[in-house]
Amino acid sequence: VSAAVRAGIVVTGTEVLTGRIADRNGPWISEQLAELGVDVAHILVVGDRPRDLEAALCFMDGEGMDLIVTSGGLGPTADDLTAEIVARFTGREMALDEEMEEKIAAILRGFARRYDFDEEAVRTANRKQAMVPQGAIALDPVGTAPGLVVPAGERVIVVLPGPPRELRPMWPAAIATEPVREVLDRATPLHGYTLRMFGIPESEIAKSLREIGAGGVELSAVEITTCLRRGEMEIDVRYRESARDTAEAVREGLGERHERHLFSVDGETIDAQVARLLKGRRLGLAESCSGGLLAARITDVPGASEYFAGGVVAYSNGAKAELLGVDPKLIEEHGAVSPQVAEAMAIGALECFDADVVVSITGIAGPDGGSREKPTGYVCFNARLADGASIAREPVIPGGRDDVRERSALVGMHLLRIMLSGAEAPL
Amino acid sequence: VSAAVRAGIVVTGTEVLTGRIADRNGPWISEQLAELGVDVAHILVVGDRPRDLEAALCFMDGEGMDLIVTSGGLGPTADDLTAEIVARFTGREMALDEEMEEKIAAILRGFARRYDFDEEAVRTANRKQAMVPQGAIALDPVGTAPGLVVPAGERVIVVLPGPPRELRPMWPAAIATEPVREVLDRATPLHGYTLRMFGIPESEIAKSLREIGAGGVELSAVEITTCLRRGEMEIDVRYRESARDTAEAVREGLGERHERHLFSVDGETIDAQVARLLKGRRLGLAESCSGGLLAARITDVPGASEYFAGGVVAYSNGAKAELLGVDPKLIEEHGAVSPQVAEAMAIGALECFDADVVVSITGIAGPDGGSREKPTGYVCFNARLADGASIAREPVIPGGRDDVRERSALVGMHLLRIMLSGAEAPL
Repeated sequence: VSAAVRAGIVVTGTEVLTGRIADRNGPWISEQLAELGVDVAHILVVGDRPRDLEAALCFMDGEGMDLIVTSGGLGPTADDLTAEIVARFTGREMALDEEMEEKIAAILRGFARRYDFDEEAVRTANRKQAMVPQGAIALDPVGTAPGLVVPAGERVIVVLPGPPRELRPMWPAAIATEPVREVLDRATPLHGYTLRMFGIPESEIAKSLREIGAGGVELSAVEITTCLRRGEMEIDVRYRESARDTAEAVREGLGERHERHLFSVDGETIDAQVARLLKGRRLGLAESCSGGLLAARITDVPGASEYFAGGVVAYSNGAKAELLGVDPKLIEEHGAVSPQVAEAMAIGALECFDADVVVSITGIAGPDGGSREKPTGYVCFNARLADGASIAREPVIPGGRDDVRERSALVGMHLLRIMLSGAEAPL
Repeated sequence: VSAAVRAGIVVTGTEVLTGRIADRNGPWISEQLAELGVDVAHILVVGDRPRDLEAALCFMDGEGMDLIVTSGGLGPTADDLTAEIVARFTGREMALDEEMEEKIAAILRGFARRYDFDEEAVRTANRKQAMVPQGAIALDPVGTAPGLVVPAGERVIVVLPGPPRELRPMWPAAIATEPVREVLDRATPLHGYTLRMFGIPESEIAKSLREIGAGGVELSAVEITTCLRRGEMEIDVRYRESARDTAEAVREGLGERHERHLFSVDGETIDAQVARLLKGRRLGLAESCSGGLLAARITDVPGASEYFAGGVVAYSNGAKAELLGVDPKLIEEHGAVSPQVAEAMAIGALECFDADVVVSITGIAGPDGGSREKPTGYVCFNARLADGASIAREPVIPGGRDDVRERSALVGMHLLRIMLSGAEAPL
């Protein structure tokens, strides 16, 4: 699975290099290019020093990258030097783009009305950002900085701004330019699909793939990545048109073997599935150890107010009794972390939110509070419909406090899916 | 502020290169090196192709990096090739380290007892991972892969495993080896401090720094990074011993000018401050638009159960009335998002959790639900003590749904801090 067209990404910014902020551009651009069939070979993060950026361009050039994409360093301040360095690297002079100057001026006038800006500083910044390497294509600004497409011999350099909210909307314009299109036309687009499974270890997938391969499917014709992401197994299969049958055979082979664990064959996330299944319902939550993480995940989806009545984060025993009507004797007898209390919390949530579906979670997130009988990671779940149907589970979730909390919310999501879709439970 | 010792980081892994998983090693190693006074110039992410890794090493060598740190590619499978490629790059043969072979075998025997492993596969993996470039120092495995310190002429290459939970514990051993120590001894350690401010734009800090500079403080002697991180302004000042007075002058100058916004001078996060202030108290929460994010943030801290009674995520009007006792007429008259309802939610939370401090949050997270009078991002807060003292705020928070929700939880944290510490409110 090797592509003819290779790309390198250069991310500039001292904050990214020093680890103060995470690089959100490199991975994003990499994904976009992969979808276009381009093989990304390197992502290089450099600071704001001109010498290091030059070295980065030089490296990408020497490595024969057909496409070099840079992010950052297009701002109005003196240490924003990417455009100049790219110009020098490609042997081009900087020249004022008057049309662009006017466009930026119009944008700045909009800002100036709202803020109290120093006029002289604005004019200088405006002029600087309108300087474009001769022969380059300037891309209209999303913020105030134009992007650039700079032909460089056999290569093309795409220069994009650093803030993701500016870079991402500019991407379609960049790949629509003639020089970039010419490069992309040489790439063979990759097809692909993503399978998502829950409650299955990576070794089982590896075993199944060995079986599928032994059964005569030429696995080397497709690119399969399995990745444990936030508690779910994600299996990503990429292939070129010629290997479509192989890719289908893999999809079928994995589907047959892991029907109960496979919950998404079209890339749809568990969050989107649960949101879809909840349409027309009324959800209530009762959380303890997950501390609101399940509610936060449910309300992360726009429009959640249509089906989410609310949740109780019943961290103390008092709150469990007072708000969810859990009998204090039950807590005394079985402990706050017990299937009995989980059930009572769920029944209480059905009532107090007048809900028709609920999930309750009570567990030991750690680091303290575990015992021999109920170790850290022991979590009791109860998912329940108003008609009385229910699923109860009490796994011991491995990992530290954060893992236990996040995984608890995830198990809650999957119990909702299973409850609402009538699927078979994998656990 | 230029350091004599420069370092480059090479992160290997196709999942990282393709953006499927975020690189957690590059930024972390970068921070560690910065603290040791080493100037990190490049972080380069490459896939699992030998040719690309070689090119990466070559680049770092050509750029004169004194220290090259790699992560990943030390596993037992055939495409884990880092050790071999580093050996070839430094002109060393691979040789079996028998002592290491025994160490790894002992670790694998531990695993084998728990899992059902193929014996032959285990033996091969064991042997492969015990192969060490001649003259290199092998670092004891944290998982099953040993790390390496490989002298390379004037440079030193440190080879570490990919999983952060293996890489991080191995770091102290790596920097304690003789070859790395020799390099680090040439670096001048950086001192530094971090100021955290809330409710202040970056431009105000820039203005203050200009004033401080104009007042005769030689700002170029220190390295100042200001960074808006998750809604807070983080000002990081790094300096060498000779510039200590300058650094102190900056700290004082910023402190004087922004006393009301400055909440942390020692790097302590708002989460740690609030946890400290809550000791011996009893906290209750009433959230609507933040959907449980504030509860999740509070319970993120181990030991939160000592002061966190619980929270209600009152997403529907029914839940606000039923659980928090908000008068439905109040909602009808002023709307669910109003200072009046925020106040009633807070009072309700005080009661139902028998709390002595509460915060309520009700707002419009969007994308729908905004109006001319109450736009998306309009959020009402009410922080309150059992004795009746309270702070009410109703800002319009900029950004999309995620921003509004996260920022709401952050404002909630700061209102708790202000309420409990008796600090002056900056808003």
